[in-house]
Amino acid sequence: MTDTVISSASKEVVIGFDRPFVMIGERINPTGRKLLAEEMKNGDFTRVVSDAMAQVEAGAQMLDVNAGIPLADEPALLVRAIKEVQAVTDVPISIDSSIVEALEAAIEVYDGKPLINSVTGEEEVLERVLPFVAKHGAAVVAISNDETGISEDPNVRFEVAKKIVHRAADYGIPAADVVVDPLVMPIGAMGTAGRQVFALLGRLRNELGVNTTCGASNVSFGLPARHHITGNFLSMAIASGMTSAIMSPLHQEVKDCVMAADVMMGHDQNCAAWIAAKRDPAAGGGAGGARRRGGRRRAGAAI
Amino acid sequence: MTDTVISSASKEVVIGFDRPFVMIGERINPTGRKLLAEEMKNGDFTRVVSDAMAQVEAGAQMLDVNAGIPLADEPALLVRAIKEVQAVTDVPISIDSSIVEALEAAIEVYDGKPLINSVTGEEEVLERVLPFVAKHGAAVVAISNDETGISEDPNVRFEVAKKIVHRAADYGIPAADVVVDPLVMPIGAMGTAGRQVFALLGRLRNELGVNTTCGASNVSFGLPARHHITGNFLSMAIASGMTSAIMSPLHQEVKDCVMAADVMMGHDQNCAAWIAAKRDPAAGGGAGGARRRGGRRRAGAAI
Repeated sequence: MTDTVISSASKEVVIGFDRPFVMIGERINPTGRKLLAEEMKNGDFTRVVSDAMAQVEAGAQMLDVNAGIPLADEPALLVRAIKEVQAVTDVPISIDSSIVEALEAAIEVYDGKPLINSVTGEEEVLERVLPFVAKHGAAVVAISNDETGISEDPNVRFEVAKKIVHRAADYGIPAADVVVDPLVMPIGAMGTAGRQVFALLGRLRNELGVNTTCGASNVSFGLPARHHITGNFLSMAIASGMTSAIMSPLHQEVKDCVMAADVMMGHDQNCAAWIAAKRDPAAGGGAGGARRRGGRRRAGAAI
Repeated sequence: MTDTVISSASKEVVIGFDRPFVMIGERINPTGRKLLAEEMKNGDFTRVVSDAMAQVEAGAQMLDVNAGIPLADEPALLVRAIKEVQAVTDVPISIDSSIVEALEAAIEVYDGKPLINSVTGEEEVLERVLPFVAKHGAAVVAISNDETGISEDPNVRFEVAKKIVHRAADYGIPAADVVVDPLVMPIGAMGTAGRQVFALLGRLRNELGVNTTCGASNVSFGLPARHHITGNFLSMAIASGMTSAIMSPLHQEVKDCVMAADVMMGHDQNCAAWIAAKRDPAAGGGAGGARRRGGRRRAGAAI
């Protein structure tokens, strides 16, 4: 049983084997969002703020914050985004960048214990990221690729994850503070993507004892009715042991699957969150009607 | 890799580890359907026939047929129901009764290789059911309870399943013709019901090498928006190894979860069935809009 505690100044969220699944809002990310990218580059963070509030209102227990804009000063933008989000919400943050300097700058201004997203198995990245994760007592997302790229062999991905967990230990970072991302490929491009991840999740939990996360939306890339695919991927991944995901709580189909999966895992005590969200007869029990009640906070994850 | 072949006079369906999930329509069952029970007792099988056609139209690859009406001549009613259904559809049938005489009478008139639903681990039932299953070369659903009832201990349920598989072998029935039902309790009454079944499904597949089924609707009994719960239970069970279920293909939320799970398991080649069902822009990708296209047959399960 592994608990990963992430916090803001006033709130702790625990990612853990025997706890409700932790939804990390994916929305604050300028990749593929031209307008948001333009605004952030021009110093306008109103959309960052409104996206933060909307996701928390929809049930996100944490928020991923990414400021990856080509040719922009990413460390400065990420620092600003973190400050803006922390000013309006109390949920803990996953600080997301592939630029080490940006992660390092953002962790300095973050109030609480963040999740640093991410470190890979590449030697240079390990050696640069793990020291400041350790120094700040943060948690870190470990992505199971290395210098050779992303292996299609799940055994290789497992070995990369294991190497990161062991290396983190060398820096004094416990396995409980390493959240492994097994890497989820689009199922439309690779039919084995799902089964690989489900098998990997079991090994990561049973053999490494670590919590897990992923960028969930990627799995349904290019498919019609993709939120149904993403949602069912999530419930199947939860059955296989996944304990958190960077995802969209704003899509009712996706959120319904996570909530139903919590019920099925026995992590929604007495089905209280499900019943609270669905029992209003006006909501009709369907996705459309229930959307109006999406703002209800899920019980049990925040301590 | 275990394949269970079930057939009608003209069609085979294969339940198997590496195949699309087999949806067995649950609707022809007078339990809790007062009007249907009354009609069947009075010799009116029009609703049985229309329910059969509607479920096949909605994608059921097989149909469960039950004629359990208190104080009625169940063997005669079941025989009549089987004949009526076989006259209008070509899908194989799961012959469903707790009355051994009814199963025995129905198997005599069935055209093809049926799935006999069911045998329990009770000595008397084993000794009465297995001989005629063997004689007709049928397949059989093994329910993991015995004289002591349904154990809450999944290890006990596994042992009962194992005993049935071994006993079937004594009668010359191969493990491939035993489809185990691990028994699914309402999650609202027993929070561990889901995890127990998921764990059992893995053991049944890996240790006994058998296909599996269950009555899926039971899991969501008493909960609001129950079809979402049933659907996500199914996708989680599929991730855990379940290969068929007695369920309702008429509920789009449930069917969507099964189809999405087939995509995620790599059992919907090139996502063809999913894309065919969802790509029509008029369907909007949502449950409501997509319902109009529910009649499309799922690819790949019938051979």
